[in-house]
Amino acid sequence: MREVAESFGYEEYNASILEPADLYRAKTGEEIVSNETYTFTDRGDREVTLRPEMTPTLARMIAAKRKELQFPIRWYSIPNLFRYEKPQRGRLREHWQLNADIFGVPGIEAEVEVISMASAIMRAFGMKDENFEVRISNRAIINFLLGDVLTLSDDLAHKVSKLIDKKAKMEPHAFAQALEILIENKSEALLSFLGAKSIAELGKLIGQKMLPDAFATTEKLMERLKAVGIQNAVFDLSLMRGFDYYTGPVFEVFDKNPENSRSVFGGGRYDDLLDIFGEAKVPAVGFGAGDVILRDLLETYNLLPEAKSATDLYLCVIGDETRSYAEQFADKLRAKGVNVAVDLTKKKVGDQIRYADKKKIPFIACIGEEEMKTGQLKVKNLKTGEEQSGTIDSLAGLLGKK
Amino acid sequence: MREVAESFGYEEYNASILEPADLYRAKTGEEIVSNETYTFTDRGDREVTLRPEMTPTLARMIAAKRKELQFPIRWYSIPNLFRYEKPQRGRLREHWQLNADIFGVPGIEAEVEVISMASAIMRAFGMKDENFEVRISNRAIINFLLGDVLTLSDDLAHKVSKLIDKKAKMEPHAFAQALEILIENKSEALLSFLGAKSIAELGKLIGQKMLPDAFATTEKLMERLKAVGIQNAVFDLSLMRGFDYYTGPVFEVFDKNPENSRSVFGGGRYDDLLDIFGEAKVPAVGFGAGDVILRDLLETYNLLPEAKSATDLYLCVIGDETRSYAEQFADKLRAKGVNVAVDLTKKKVGDQIRYADKKKIPFIACIGEEEMKTGQLKVKNLKTGEEQSGTIDSLAGLLGKK
Repeated sequence: MREVAESFGYEEYNASILEPADLYRAKTGEEIVSNETYTFTDRGDREVTLRPEMTPTLARMIAAKRKELQFPIRWYSIPNLFRYEKPQRGRLREHWQLNADIFGVPGIEAEVEVISMASAIMRAFGMKDENFEVRISNRAIINFLLGDVLTLSDDLAHKVSKLIDKKAKMEPHAFAQALEILIENKSEALLSFLGAKSIAELGKLIGQKMLPDAFATTEKLMERLKAVGIQNAVFDLSLMRGFDYYTGPVFEVFDKNPENSRSVFGGGRYDDLLDIFGEAKVPAVGFGAGDVILRDLLETYNLLPEAKSATDLYLCVIGDETRSYAEQFADKLRAKGVNVAVDLTKKKVGDQIRYADKKKIPFIACIGEEEMKTGQLKVKNLKTGEEQSGTIDSLAGLLGKK
Repeated sequence: MREVAESFGYEEYNASILEPADLYRAKTGEEIVSNETYTFTDRGDREVTLRPEMTPTLARMIAAKRKELQFPIRWYSIPNLFRYEKPQRGRLREHWQLNADIFGVPGIEAEVEVISMASAIMRAFGMKDENFEVRISNRAIINFLLGDVLTLSDDLAHKVSKLIDKKAKMEPHAFAQALEILIENKSEALLSFLGAKSIAELGKLIGQKMLPDAFATTEKLMERLKAVGIQNAVFDLSLMRGFDYYTGPVFEVFDKNPENSRSVFGGGRYDDLLDIFGEAKVPAVGFGAGDVILRDLLETYNLLPEAKSATDLYLCVIGDETRSYAEQFADKLRAKGVNVAVDLTKKKVGDQIRYADKKKIPFIACIGEEEMKTGQLKVKNLKTGEEQSGTIDSLAGLLGKK
């Protein structure tokens, strides 16, 4: 995740895990802070919370420095987040989450980039385009449909939003019933809107001539995604991604596995971010990708990366009189960017090699009297069995990085 | 720090920041847990602490898995640690600290390796060997001097240890006085012991024929350090590194700057680590290096690394019709390991370049109609002004990594 984020030009930020509890009260409400977070009073009588999400912290940081910062800003972080809730599949009390955000870009170029990055993360883990889709919606369109087209009151529109947010987890029949209880004879129209497969189809269903900009914007976004190679993007108006937060396009990476179909991660545009600090708006698009659901997904597709050793070479030492030489030899390889562990077990060479193999270190070499005389080393690849002799300079290339 | 640790074959581990408060009570006592840590009761009525140090967590992890683990184990982590204390120069409420530890090596090879790594960290930051020294002592020798040679009671020996631990921060005269109050006519002998510049000199001062193994071990350690190129190691018996913890050799990297002389970081052998979990001993050597003191040190020597952009190339976009092409071009470079940010400002090219320069991105290139036709790009190094033209394949090498 880090590699992909940096490949798109995103810079890492970090912050303390402790925040004033009020930071979350303002946005998520008293109840959630009291019941679902780790909140406590410190020795200085401050109420503090272990961050349950990164966005309020990010907003605080951007608000504090907005005059010094050069916009657009591309930032990412992979923080640990804490929620006091019953641990279950997909949800743990502590988890890690990639947060990638871009500030200062009002146009859909920002969405194209962020969705490209989300897609690139799936591909980087080996996921095939046909196994997932990128669902796209726009909060401004939903607001227009509920408020202007169906003329629902704010309160009713909010309730309907909440219901739509739960649609993916309900039987179609149960959803239709619940919708009818809420908005009666308007439910059929809304159901047809939610079923629209494209902006053009939705436009026809509405039948109005004057549509808000969000329609054209979303159509353009769908086109631009195809143009940059995101062929699995689909328009899906029933996508809400929560309901209080976003102001424009929202998206979600969705696992199409029929036995396990669900949202993997997502995000969207939230231009009102800095409101809670009384600051003027800053255009913002971002997404979060948690480690727990991603891990479950990769396990399902048998794509979980194998644990690799950070060590390149295990240097076996034959006889204690060659130890200092081996250690200095190792230092010279380290200076060339090779990660080298020197044997300290003093066991038989066979045992030293077995140890390296168990630690999944890819290469081994032995240092004895002969190697001390010649300065030549024989390096063995433990997986393929291939051997290669050389000096420090030629070996660094074989093992090598940097 | 991460690069150096991995170059020595150390593998990263991690853990939650929350631990049961009892984990620290067992080792550091009720008072410290209550007064100097962030400790609170969670919603499940558990008393939990934000870790003030990593070693108890590490001990817990090793104890829980010792039967499955392949010893020796080389592990490192760079955790954040929390202490509730008045923030001041060198001490903050949250700081980050490298912890590197090796388990399962009873001989001084472990000390040689860990001290080499500590030294390599100083060198990696640009510190010159003549500006710092590596002080070496051995807790077993101090215990022998206080108990066997000076025949102090355990209680008195403990008080004297505490006093020696403060020696570096006291005037020599004040230290001698305080020592005399504690142990009267034995203070002169102890002062001479503490002044010994080598094990040989100390041996002569003691004048006994039968010295414990720790003497030979420490002498051998000093020799081996010289043999692997650590020329600035010095024997200094007054080095304590705390007083309850270590069981053998201890060391410390010390800043020799006369205006700022102080310990930068250090560690030692603590073979009794797993005692608190009722597990048998495991030989262990490790050290910790905090970010705050290291940062102060590097500032003093003007060695603080300049903030570098993680982005290699800023791709300026001339005209919106080339945008999709630019984004796909960027994707191809990303696949070759180049980190590319594509311009989304839609400003004039001059402004795009100025933005890249302010963000300290080293290279820029522009994509317009011409580049779309030829597939050739002109890359400019913003620092040197050098320009180079090429295709994706040839440019990836220039900008490149992986």
